[in-house]
Amino acid sequence: MRSKHPVIQTLHDNKSRVNHCLCVGIDPDITKLPEAFSHTLSGLNDFLEKVIKDTSGQVLAYKPNISFFEALGIDGLKSLELLRKHIPENIPMILDAKRGDIGNTATMQAKYLFDYFGADASTLHPYMGLDSLEPFFKYKDKLHFVLGLTSNPSASNFEKLKLENGEPLYKTVISQCAGWNKEYGNVGVVVGATQSELKEIRKIDQDIIFLIPGVGAQGGYYEDAFSQGKNQDDLVVINASRSILYQNPELSFCERISQTIS
Amino acid sequence: MRSKHPVIQTLHDNKSRVNHCLCVGIDPDITKLPEAFSHTLSGLNDFLEKVIKDTSGQVLAYKPNISFFEALGIDGLKSLELLRKHIPENIPMILDAKRGDIGNTATMQAKYLFDYFGADASTLHPYMGLDSLEPFFKYKDKLHFVLGLTSNPSASNFEKLKLENGEPLYKTVISQCAGWNKEYGNVGVVVGATQSELKEIRKIDQDIIFLIPGVGAQGGYYEDAFSQGKNQDDLVVINASRSILYQNPELSFCERISQTIS
Repeated sequence: MRSKHPVIQTLHDNKSRVNHCLCVGIDPDITKLPEAFSHTLSGLNDFLEKVIKDTSGQVLAYKPNISFFEALGIDGLKSLELLRKHIPENIPMILDAKRGDIGNTATMQAKYLFDYFGADASTLHPYMGLDSLEPFFKYKDKLHFVLGLTSNPSASNFEKLKLENGEPLYKTVISQCAGWNKEYGNVGVVVGATQSELKEIRKIDQDIIFLIPGVGAQGGYYEDAFSQGKNQDDLVVINASRSILYQNPELSFCERISQTIS
Repeated sequence: MRSKHPVIQTLHDNKSRVNHCLCVGIDPDITKLPEAFSHTLSGLNDFLEKVIKDTSGQVLAYKPNISFFEALGIDGLKSLELLRKHIPENIPMILDAKRGDIGNTATMQAKYLFDYFGADASTLHPYMGLDSLEPFFKYKDKLHFVLGLTSNPSASNFEKLKLENGEPLYKTVISQCAGWNKEYGNVGVVVGATQSELKEIRKIDQDIIFLIPGVGAQGGYYEDAFSQGKNQDDLVVINASRSILYQNPELSFCERISQTIS
């Protein structure tokens, strides 16, 4: 039996410790910071440091959304660098970046996410196919979540289009990812929690790990996502961002985690 | 008759001036810098300044590839900021970034590319559908090139999959983009020059503007791309990157442009 991928092993260890599969998404938004923090980049940095300090013993993983840092320009990216330093080594950092491009460009993208920011995992667009993803997969010790079926309404535009074989496009994408996972051992897929298709999708492959966003503010439920989305090893990464960071300010971050998973 | 989109008008003006449709792609690679430049970020900045100085009177547009700057970290992004300052206002800067995500994230991505870097146009992944693209389209005065059929071999994995109606996925994506262009007036598509399907794709819609990468190092020919890819107003954006920046160092940049279009 081959040993587990190092990031998957860490996720298993964390799950055993915290007893759930909730990943906290970090979508920094200066306008939404609690009153105790100045609505500046410095206030944001303090806020993110507190989020990590208060929650790192209680989460499966963190998923910073790089686009929210980028929107703040180069200073925002410095906040992401700082955040990376605050995240403990045993908590995987899934840097949500939705990249993917022709080979030589994809190589540059992977360098940025893994070598520069030290991400443990990222998210990828499947549209351009394997040679746009392989430069990521070649980072063997990293995990690569390819978009399968997303949680937004316009997933119907292309993802749900029926192919010649009668199946929707996303099923072929996910089957293909499951095949690549057998080959590379480090491929996962993103499947939205608001999609009623989750249970059906799990049947495609029992091994591949799902990253399920859309719990909390986007309307999905943790328990459904867990029971329908877990793989044969009972592992799944379920993400909540806004509901942990900004909602119910009268509760502590850990109380919001408890509320989200209950 | 509605007036032309400002970026499209500028492209027309530039085409009249330079008499071709070649866009120069800026993929900075320190290891490939000519001997006269130090192989450092500072050398790269000098090189890029020279590229712009020598070519800005001879190009339709520039297409910096943000991933190559990102691979150099925050200092690389500072080089992109500097490059933006060197590009004259009348030369559109297509910031090739391949973005696209759920609405609130896509809004952040658009802020980064257009408000922070001052791009005039970008490139987008279609997979997640309209609500992942609309935050870009809402930047009315910018142009938005959505991936249609790309120039890499793995375009066959998903882009060329046949749908229930017998047509490949990319045709539906491009038709949909043509429809969005009728509504928003600022949507284009990316179609690879190495694809024999170019002529067929042009028949889908006569108005939508194509961004055609893959000329030069990737093996496509300018003249074919122009004759098969131009729209009803004889406009198309044909990109060459490596063949202008790094190949044939005995020629000037403008001589390389002349050679690429001849």
